[in-house]
Amino acid sequence: MNVNLPLPIVEPLDRSFDDTLSRIIDAKTKPPGSLGMLEAIARQIGAIQRSTRPSIRRPAMIVFAADHGIAQEGVSPYPQAVTAQMVANFLAGGAAINAISGVAACELEVVNAGVATPLASPQGLVDIPIGPGTRNFAAERAMTHEQMRAALLAGAARVDHHAALGTNVIGFGEMGIANTSSAACLMSRLCGVPIDVCVGRGTGVDDAGLAHKRRVLSAALERHRDATEPLDVLAAFGGFEIAMMTGAYLAAARARMTILVDGFIATAALLVAHALAPSVLDYCLFAHQSDEAGHRRMLEFLNAKPLLSLGLRLGEGTGAALALPLVRAAVAFINEMASFESAGVATRDTPDAEPAAR
Amino acid sequence: MNVNLPLPIVEPLDRSFDDTLSRIIDAKTKPPGSLGMLEAIARQIGAIQRSTRPSIRRPAMIVFAADHGIAQEGVSPYPQAVTAQMVANFLAGGAAINAISGVAACELEVVNAGVATPLASPQGLVDIPIGPGTRNFAAERAMTHEQMRAALLAGAARVDHHAALGTNVIGFGEMGIANTSSAACLMSRLCGVPIDVCVGRGTGVDDAGLAHKRRVLSAALERHRDATEPLDVLAAFGGFEIAMMTGAYLAAARARMTILVDGFIATAALLVAHALAPSVLDYCLFAHQSDEAGHRRMLEFLNAKPLLSLGLRLGEGTGAALALPLVRAAVAFINEMASFESAGVATRDTPDAEPAAR
Repeated sequence: MNVNLPLPIVEPLDRSFDDTLSRIIDAKTKPPGSLGMLEAIARQIGAIQRSTRPSIRRPAMIVFAADHGIAQEGVSPYPQAVTAQMVANFLAGGAAINAISGVAACELEVVNAGVATPLASPQGLVDIPIGPGTRNFAAERAMTHEQMRAALLAGAARVDHHAALGTNVIGFGEMGIANTSSAACLMSRLCGVPIDVCVGRGTGVDDAGLAHKRRVLSAALERHRDATEPLDVLAAFGGFEIAMMTGAYLAAARARMTILVDGFIATAALLVAHALAPSVLDYCLFAHQSDEAGHRRMLEFLNAKPLLSLGLRLGEGTGAALALPLVRAAVAFINEMASFESAGVATRDTPDAEPAAR
Repeated sequence: MNVNLPLPIVEPLDRSFDDTLSRIIDAKTKPPGSLGMLEAIARQIGAIQRSTRPSIRRPAMIVFAADHGIAQEGVSPYPQAVTAQMVANFLAGGAAINAISGVAACELEVVNAGVATPLASPQGLVDIPIGPGTRNFAAERAMTHEQMRAALLAGAARVDHHAALGTNVIGFGEMGIANTSSAACLMSRLCGVPIDVCVGRGTGVDDAGLAHKRRVLSAALERHRDATEPLDVLAAFGGFEIAMMTGAYLAAARARMTILVDGFIATAALLVAHALAPSVLDYCLFAHQSDEAGHRRMLEFLNAKPLLSLGLRLGEGTGAALALPLVRAAVAFINEMASFESAGVATRDTPDAEPAAR
């Protein structure tokens, strides 16, 4: 498939800097390695920013919302109108991501990527819908190539907007009734695993609903069996919010941002970005392991170790925002902690250390 | 053993409030249960504070530092002087807990519970040493009953001080060369598990050092085989910082604070407090699972599910401070999120919901 896309180019991270960062981290007043994953975060951010004094500037969360034609197949227990209602809730400050991004002290942007129900008051919204939801991929491809192209570029443009404002740490969240169905199909095709492994209860289907969801998605995968290239897979099964996230990941990596990866849907979008540009992973921190069945397998596929495992299965970027304080802690320790030498703390090798002049 | 101690009385938590809290949480605009462990935190804090609108006021971290006579047996690769050097580092703002408590925005207090090496400048220190380190419990009991009593009461008094300033969320950290040896013996005796399960590498002993540590502690447990009552066990193997933490846990629970439990040493002190007053656990959130061997088993013994698992093994309260943002998120969501009704978001049961007047 040739969509003639000027996709952001992602450079692999130069890890030759790691030794320098490790020496700095090991000189800090603590037993070597004793800050565990915080040390790995510090090394990664140092490498991304090519700095021994990494910083967090204007951290931001973009929540992309869109509807899915596959919802017509009854794969979610919630009506499609909930997508628009939740967008209104985001704008009014009443959703989980509002509370959690407030605690994490990050900017929150809400993007209408293609909600089906008209929004009463789009004030505060970045209102750039690709269309009134995707088509039903049980019957036809979810989106045209033109729509996919527009969504990828729009997602990248949102990241560029934040980059221009100084953001260097970013996360992406989503809202879209039935989007676990979209994500499960992307996962099945891109990871090469059976659909049953990929399908979970989403927002809470029961056993009969789960069996129905599996049948619907299994048939859809068969219908679009020719879709195997990443962008074809995205056009066949994706959502407008997922396509925007895909473009956003690529742009964030191009801008050398540190990317906080949220849960099942957000990681499905990353699967597409990864298939297009594997180096995007160099810029990613995996915020959490979702309780949604399938996310663990996605993380394994990407060789990713999640920072948190709190049984979350909400989306909206909530897990990504919850991980931001850990990133802040990693940056704080590498910048603020004294070294054994500067603090005059003895090590195993220099038991008689005296405080250096300070 | 009768030490004539006016130990803080801990009331079991009244969980009859849980149904009310669960109803409030389930009415929030999210699928039921989708905030995972954050929902459990919110329910627990609500029960502790007897409030459907719990709050976090003046969160505080107290780091207790003391030396251990058992260090003479060569159980740690670091010289004893490091305890005093690290206290100086805490006061100068150069340690990991300084960086992390800064990110978590909590008060930090450093207590000299009994450091052996004279401290050059105790400015900013709560300087209430019980003695110049404990005695070597390979040869004799670590502390007298009078010392233990003084330490328990001093720890409780520090918590009362913070309670008077308004603190309702608190964590305890520690510093003391060789205190993993003390904690391992407390664990072995109080949990009834073999010492080999309890002994880890601490700050980093090698294989030979680990074998030596096991031999020393095994002999010490045999020497003090008559110490089986909780306070006898504490006097035999404890440290002044551990005894102060024990008193601090009890006082914090009495004051109905939410307690953030740190790693291996902090949990060992909690084992003593739990043996004295099992209800103390009702007030505890287990911040993280330490990488120190034995901590996982301790948590299992207490039926505790840790919030974080980041491979930390540093102490100082670092894990507890890292968990504070999760507690803030739990309190924020229960206070700030809209309900389905108030936000006019449809549920599975009310698919035609319209926004309520707002």
